[in-house]
Amino acid sequence: MNTSATLLDTLRAEVDQSLRKFLDLRRPLLADPDLAPLLQAADEFLAGGKRLRPAFCYWGWRAAGGGPDPAIVTAAASLELLQASALIHDDVMDKSDLRRGMPAAHKRFEALHERSGWHGSARRFGEGAAILLGNLLLLWSGEMWRTSGLAEEALDAAMPLHDHMRTELMCGQYLDLLEQAEGESTFEGALRVALYKSGRYSVEQPLRLGLTLAARGELPWMERLCVEYGRSVGIAFQLRDDVLGVFGDPAETGKPAGDDLREGKRTMLIARALGSATPRQAEDVRALLGDPALDEAGVARLRAIIEETGALAACEEMIKRYLDDALASLEQAPITPESRQALTGLAIAATARRT
Amino acid sequence: MNTSATLLDTLRAEVDQSLRKFLDLRRPLLADPDLAPLLQAADEFLAGGKRLRPAFCYWGWRAAGGGPDPAIVTAAASLELLQASALIHDDVMDKSDLRRGMPAAHKRFEALHERSGWHGSARRFGEGAAILLGNLLLLWSGEMWRTSGLAEEALDAAMPLHDHMRTELMCGQYLDLLEQAEGESTFEGALRVALYKSGRYSVEQPLRLGLTLAARGELPWMERLCVEYGRSVGIAFQLRDDVLGVFGDPAETGKPAGDDLREGKRTMLIARALGSATPRQAEDVRALLGDPALDEAGVARLRAIIEETGALAACEEMIKRYLDDALASLEQAPITPESRQALTGLAIAATARRT
Repeated sequence: MNTSATLLDTLRAEVDQSLRKFLDLRRPLLADPDLAPLLQAADEFLAGGKRLRPAFCYWGWRAAGGGPDPAIVTAAASLELLQASALIHDDVMDKSDLRRGMPAAHKRFEALHERSGWHGSARRFGEGAAILLGNLLLLWSGEMWRTSGLAEEALDAAMPLHDHMRTELMCGQYLDLLEQAEGESTFEGALRVALYKSGRYSVEQPLRLGLTLAARGELPWMERLCVEYGRSVGIAFQLRDDVLGVFGDPAETGKPAGDDLREGKRTMLIARALGSATPRQAEDVRALLGDPALDEAGVARLRAIIEETGALAACEEMIKRYLDDALASLEQAPITPESRQALTGLAIAATARRT
Repeated sequence: MNTSATLLDTLRAEVDQSLRKFLDLRRPLLADPDLAPLLQAADEFLAGGKRLRPAFCYWGWRAAGGGPDPAIVTAAASLELLQASALIHDDVMDKSDLRRGMPAAHKRFEALHERSGWHGSARRFGEGAAILLGNLLLLWSGEMWRTSGLAEEALDAAMPLHDHMRTELMCGQYLDLLEQAEGESTFEGALRVALYKSGRYSVEQPLRLGLTLAARGELPWMERLCVEYGRSVGIAFQLRDDVLGVFGDPAETGKPAGDDLREGKRTMLIARALGSATPRQAEDVRALLGDPALDEAGVARLRAIIEETGALAACEEMIKRYLDDALASLEQAPITPESRQALTGLAIAATARRT
């Protein structure tokens, strides 16, 4: 029997190939040499990524009895285009200059403008081009999904869910902006963002899509697996992301150390820290969090408060509890041993400590 | 027999109603009170607009023998969501503060931030929320098209064209950014932008979509109508838009006078003016065009150069020639008298002088 790491590596290679093939089919449409930078940025952006969402979708399909059909790999891979679109727009909205350790899309276009000695604001050109690139990838994710080669009945069964997921993604991103703007750091607010922004869209919905495609509708046990396994892994995944955003190694996160602190992200870590902070600590958090010029000493001070208040330990404990619940639920689901093994490996990989 | 104005007014009312119905169906998805500003902005944005693209699509359908089916009104109305998405993103990219005489979407969200006394940059919140609203409308345009109630075979026949149009729209917008950045004002460059940015997407492609939906494929005379009528009206429409952008009445355009000059748009007017300018005039154009702080005197100077070089008259002549060609081609097409009448009225309405 394959190990779960082998199963996940094999799928990742298939998803990579499927994305390259889809982009190659789009080249004739963008044959004008002036459009080459758009395609190149898409190629480079899509060369990276953990392919997490496609994996949850694919293994949902296999868990509900679907076979290793190339069409499901293509449909699942389309979620990576959706994610790329969201990240490119996210970086424009956050004015985030780095992504996966490389310049963000808008910075690449800005550099193209500068290199070419063009007129007008390079920053504005970069942001505009990145918005359009994100739109292209958003459109293409829908095309790739529809033209994956899956049976019409399967696509029809999953279509309302697919539409719902994409609307929910945009709404979740808006709630995230709002949460930062309102500057309230409550446990409930942080949990809502963890759930909407990423939890549902990263794990639960891709899994549900795969299950629904294979079952061409809903089987009695599916909803429970989506909520008890999918939602729990999704929240734990987002909490891990929050921890990495503050304590992660830049070589691993591809972002400068403390970037989430500089952006003022209202995560569960911050909500927990403020919930247990002394007046002095709370004052420091309010003064430092969201300061775009936050230096190393400021990052260190915020990290120390997050550790001293017990917020870091509490988040690690939450991640462990959500993961344990998810794995216990997985044991109960009437799915094949291979898909159980892969979904176990995926849950662990998505939430593992990486420091 | 109905006049063409009555035909167009009736359709506009039906498109309005169809859009309201579609948005109403989305309300339960956005029931969280925090999401209300997104829906409200969508409602307000979609209350305006000339419904030009839906009209070309609808009358394409009728021209190819389709009946007055409510499903085609819904499918055609979905193009208005696509257009709204493009305008909202456009205003973010151009930092344009007014749209249809009202604050642009990003300015509305910026004002919400200020009114609410939230944290962080109001401008950044406004732009982020507007990017997300544009994404929502882009997704919804695809949903409205697919769920319009048209027969599966009709939608399948038009799907490649529908996908193509949307990719082309994003590429056209990118070429427009590029043209402004490169700052070259050539006749060919201006014509390419007029064609890609708006010409094909505003008239030719909506018309082709309607024809293809009704014919469930391509009839021998259709391509000729799309190119000779559709493309000509599309270019004339964009040229009219360029003239209005410089000489239009703000009450009519909904934009401050001379806004296109301040943004440095490289239109046919500018290409023509530079092509016939004296060295002194050319120097003034280069110094003034694209200056964000351009005042009334600067606008007046640029207008005078555009008139004195004969660029305005040349553009008016081009509009007239494209319109005449389009109407002559329409005479030859084997379509019903009612659709010929409506398409004649539409071509005139889309390109008419409004000063």
